[in-house]
Amino acid sequence: MGKSVRNHELKIVSPTPADIVIAQSVTPVPISEIAESLGLQSEDIALYGDTKAKVKLSVLDRIGSEKRGRGYYVVVGGISPTPLGEGKSTTTVGVCQALGGHLSKKVVTCLRQPSQGPTFGIKGGAAGGGYSQVIPMEEFNLHLTGDIHAITAANNLLAAAIDARMFHESTQSDAALFNRLCPADKSGKRSFAGVMMRRLRKLGIEKKDPAELTAEEKRQFARLDMDPERITWKRVMDTNDRFLRKITVGQGPDEKGFTRQTGFDIAVASEIMAVLALTTSLADLRERLGRMVVATSKAGDPITADDLGVGGALTVLMKDAIHPTLMQTLERTPVLVHAGPFANIAHGNSSIVADQIALQLVGDGGFVITEAGFGADIGLEKFFNIKCRYSGLQPDCAVLVATVRALKMHGGGPPVVAGRPLDRAYVEENLDLVRKGCCNLARHVENAKLFGVPVVVAINKFGTDTQEELDAVRAEALAAGANEAVVTSHFAEGGKGAVELALALERVCREKRESGSSSGSEEFKFLYPLDLSIKEKIAAIATKIYRASDVSYSPEAEEQIAIYERQGFGQLPICMAKTQYSFSHDAALKGAPSGFVLPIREVRASVGAGFIYPIVGTMSTMPGLPTRPCFYDIDIDCVTGQVVGLS
Amino acid sequence: MGKSVRNHELKIVSPTPADIVIAQSVTPVPISEIAESLGLQSEDIALYGDTKAKVKLSVLDRIGSEKRGRGYYVVVGGISPTPLGEGKSTTTVGVCQALGGHLSKKVVTCLRQPSQGPTFGIKGGAAGGGYSQVIPMEEFNLHLTGDIHAITAANNLLAAAIDARMFHESTQSDAALFNRLCPADKSGKRSFAGVMMRRLRKLGIEKKDPAELTAEEKRQFARLDMDPERITWKRVMDTNDRFLRKITVGQGPDEKGFTRQTGFDIAVASEIMAVLALTTSLADLRERLGRMVVATSKAGDPITADDLGVGGALTVLMKDAIHPTLMQTLERTPVLVHAGPFANIAHGNSSIVADQIALQLVGDGGFVITEAGFGADIGLEKFFNIKCRYSGLQPDCAVLVATVRALKMHGGGPPVVAGRPLDRAYVEENLDLVRKGCCNLARHVENAKLFGVPVVVAINKFGTDTQEELDAVRAEALAAGANEAVVTSHFAEGGKGAVELALALERVCREKRESGSSSGSEEFKFLYPLDLSIKEKIAAIATKIYRASDVSYSPEAEEQIAIYERQGFGQLPICMAKTQYSFSHDAALKGAPSGFVLPIREVRASVGAGFIYPIVGTMSTMPGLPTRPCFYDIDIDCVTGQVVGLS
Repeated sequence: MGKSVRNHELKIVSPTPADIVIAQSVTPVPISEIAESLGLQSEDIALYGDTKAKVKLSVLDRIGSEKRGRGYYVVVGGISPTPLGEGKSTTTVGVCQALGGHLSKKVVTCLRQPSQGPTFGIKGGAAGGGYSQVIPMEEFNLHLTGDIHAITAANNLLAAAIDARMFHESTQSDAALFNRLCPADKSGKRSFAGVMMRRLRKLGIEKKDPAELTAEEKRQFARLDMDPERITWKRVMDTNDRFLRKITVGQGPDEKGFTRQTGFDIAVASEIMAVLALTTSLADLRERLGRMVVATSKAGDPITADDLGVGGALTVLMKDAIHPTLMQTLERTPVLVHAGPFANIAHGNSSIVADQIALQLVGDGGFVITEAGFGADIGLEKFFNIKCRYSGLQPDCAVLVATVRALKMHGGGPPVVAGRPLDRAYVEENLDLVRKGCCNLARHVENAKLFGVPVVVAINKFGTDTQEELDAVRAEALAAGANEAVVTSHFAEGGKGAVELALALERVCREKRESGSSSGSEEFKFLYPLDLSIKEKIAAIATKIYRASDVSYSPEAEEQIAIYERQGFGQLPICMAKTQYSFSHDAALKGAPSGFVLPIREVRASVGAGFIYPIVGTMSTMPGLPTRPCFYDIDIDCVTGQVVGLS
Repeated sequence: MGKSVRNHELKIVSPTPADIVIAQSVTPVPISEIAESLGLQSEDIALYGDTKAKVKLSVLDRIGSEKRGRGYYVVVGGISPTPLGEGKSTTTVGVCQALGGHLSKKVVTCLRQPSQGPTFGIKGGAAGGGYSQVIPMEEFNLHLTGDIHAITAANNLLAAAIDARMFHESTQSDAALFNRLCPADKSGKRSFAGVMMRRLRKLGIEKKDPAELTAEEKRQFARLDMDPERITWKRVMDTNDRFLRKITVGQGPDEKGFTRQTGFDIAVASEIMAVLALTTSLADLRERLGRMVVATSKAGDPITADDLGVGGALTVLMKDAIHPTLMQTLERTPVLVHAGPFANIAHGNSSIVADQIALQLVGDGGFVITEAGFGADIGLEKFFNIKCRYSGLQPDCAVLVATVRALKMHGGGPPVVAGRPLDRAYVEENLDLVRKGCCNLARHVENAKLFGVPVVVAINKFGTDTQEELDAVRAEALAAGANEAVVTSHFAEGGKGAVELALALERVCREKRESGSSSGSEEFKFLYPLDLSIKEKIAAIATKIYRASDVSYSPEAEEQIAIYERQGFGQLPICMAKTQYSFSHDAALKGAPSGFVLPIREVRASVGAGFIYPIVGTMSTMPGLPTRPCFYDIDIDCVTGQVVGLS
């Protein structure tokens, strides 16, 4: 199944150097060799330099016919995140380095593409850390193969089309508008563009010759009549630019006073990103992009990208972005990077097509390890209920990542303040805090089991953790129902430090598959069926996953739910937009709160991506820059061309 | 010098099919073969799929040492453009297809990367036309290798940094600001980031330890004190979005009322695009990006990207964009695509590094044909006075492209109205109009000769032109001083139709080089020396190139000139921002107007790119979308994956 790449033996240095120092100390092998090791042929890939390659979707058909079988499908989630970090990406990468580099398993890591905003802002990069990283980390964290830029371009073309259309409709008669939309050719004959047939079908007009339309039909066709107050589509930018959160556009003299208040989101929050992550083929992408709802007409009808005539152009802008990008870890195992939908308002998981390709590439006995965003109450729940529903794939196992430090905070440890030394509670043994904090982990374990999926807890070890603390977490995890719980040290040791975790995963996955054929074993199941009402589906998540006692709705949310159900979008799955820092809507409520009433402020729909997203509390969709952003440290060595200061 | 690629024999169909039909009918050879034919080695290039490759700047050093000599350097300009089109890009591509495909010369075409705005808006693509095109045209017209997206990302990171910094300065004391900019490490020690040393040097502070700065020095260092009314840096987007021309930002509740009116330009109008086109190395790029002036402090000092700490990060974002992209023509000759600065406010020429690489690759006896934007009074003048000044390169010949139709309009032909049939003046013989209109061509010829450069006029033939009309243009061109004037039919016939033009170019170039060594020959010369005052330089261009009788300045322009000269930017070359449709500031004045007074409304500086740009009249830097944008026709064939409807 392809020539294998010799594992790279890491030269481990202690204390662990800076991420970029480790990343740049390892020379990546040509990405074509990584591709070859997966059985990819040269026509399956498009190289982007020596270290990145797009893997073409067409590989699904080719490899599908080879009947390689399907690898084990493992999803990685985490406890509710804290400022202390749980190391989810690092664990995802580390266990793959163990599987591929130390246990000689076929393995592919599936990761989200990070936004450039945080790279230059506060958070820094997202390629893993220590001796468990994707390289070159500067490629991973910067433009990669341009997918996010394509999303930005597509999102903003659609936004420009909305304002331009409203402007032109406001200044033209029905007839002039229609005639401009269907201009006459040299012989005087008018015709509809292909995309216009979609709008005609939607309107129930079955004529194909513009000349046959009645004046009323021409008006219906040409006048979208969008309500400026009910435009839900915003512009995006992959930059932390807080001053664009709320803006007034159209103040130029040529725009004749048609001003409007709107705003920018960060590019990864675009619905087009969510679409990319959930699509399953080029044809499916075309349909999803075309049916995205961007506004409501004054008569209350949803207006789509295809109504604006732009669905095809959006697909053309996204035609390369649909192919996942192949990279490698420090130990030369393959990584597919694809999509990175903003976790709070979108589903926070990498793409379906990357997982599908990976599962076929590794074949029977191989592993695909895919990461879900943020805490498991958000990322994992959406992975199961949304991503798996659209992909038809069923996970064999879920990994939950926890750290002693973060659990201490859930147990009531003092807050962490940037720029101040860490409280001693976090650097000295404190079994009481650890045990108390395990309530958070325990609930995430129980939640995952609700879906019929076995759970392995990965305890990501820090240098200051004591054996007693690690043992305590292990015991609590098993008590909560985890199938296995393993301490890992991949940050400091690379794949070698995650071999036990990898072995545990293999045991659990094999058992699951074997018992899957027997009658009494647990089956993968969704939390709710789609035919429940929107409120019933929200209640299922709120009470069973978050453990709220009830859900309350603002009058606005009530109205929006009624509109979406009337418009026929009531059968979509639910994508809760909630803080990741707590099971509840209150980020300050650590541990495992229950009995609260979950307030739904607003309800919106991503019709193209295919979900309803209720907004719990306020959700910032555009980060800002601090006084001293990360970019101060980032520069280029003009002699070697190497990037410095990226973290 | 590398294995040659077999010329592709075009199968010519008449009448000429749509551009995309021709483009998709020819299968490109792997771009690695094109690279090999130029003597490029695998380490010189980075593949971006099969049809595009970045050519690394490092090739300059490697090939330079091989002493291949330097090819002929030819620049292509045009008469003042009209809605009828002169076919400049098409001619540039066509003559290269003739040189490489029919005369077996080494040749590289150097083109600008088009903006995606017009591709989806009004104009359509820019890959040439008919049987003279760059392929795949959909790659050329869309994301290419991401350079424009990198420019957008860099431009907008800088913009976000400006507003965020003003915000943070407004809410913090001097000490808090300084301490946040230079945070203490674990041991309590503060240090300056590398980029901060640049600001310290600028302020004349020679200390390297933050602890040694006086309170006043800390204030000077930390407080940029930008005047919100004098921020010249705008955000950009590669989309025709007229509603972003003038906007108010900062209206979100968290921005505490710090609103400000600003706007977006189209991405190719970014100073970073102009920088990319004029830079000569990675180190030079770093310096230029760092010294870009984005605002003026309340005390009147220029504030740069490096003052904001972001010059290094901008360079990191641009590290791949600095390498030109290799593509091919329909007849498999090589093309370098690189940079596309907005012609009216920037210099409108492709990059210096692409030309330099191309000249080394073709070597002695080879040809580099590079295109200058818009009419020759703008594109060619800036090519000579700005691009050649920064590159140190001297052109061997200038080509001026004209069409009978466009000249008829300059001769007083009726206006062209979109959607109405063309007036018969343009489709029937009208020798009188043609001869009158040649005044425009003649003046462009005379102007090019002012620089000591020989001129070949290319008369780009349309099907409706008569032999008498073509002869008339030829005669007028020669009478005006053109060294040669040749009729070409590359649109309908590909390279074969431009063989005579190619032969004329070769004669003129060879003559120029041979006479260059003798004493009496004309030498290449700039129109003005840099040490003239800003006004003297403007006057030189206005009177000698545009033939204005005088120049007038608004009070604002007067003030700005005084400021720039005081700030030390008076020695920069001038980049006039003027309409391309007339020698004058009035687009309606066709032909060859003279005796007008040129009004300078405003004067701005692109300090990083390295020019002063006086603004003549009003200049739109953000196009809009029409009622029926091009995107209506653009879609993807979901079975073949092919793009349809791109023009």
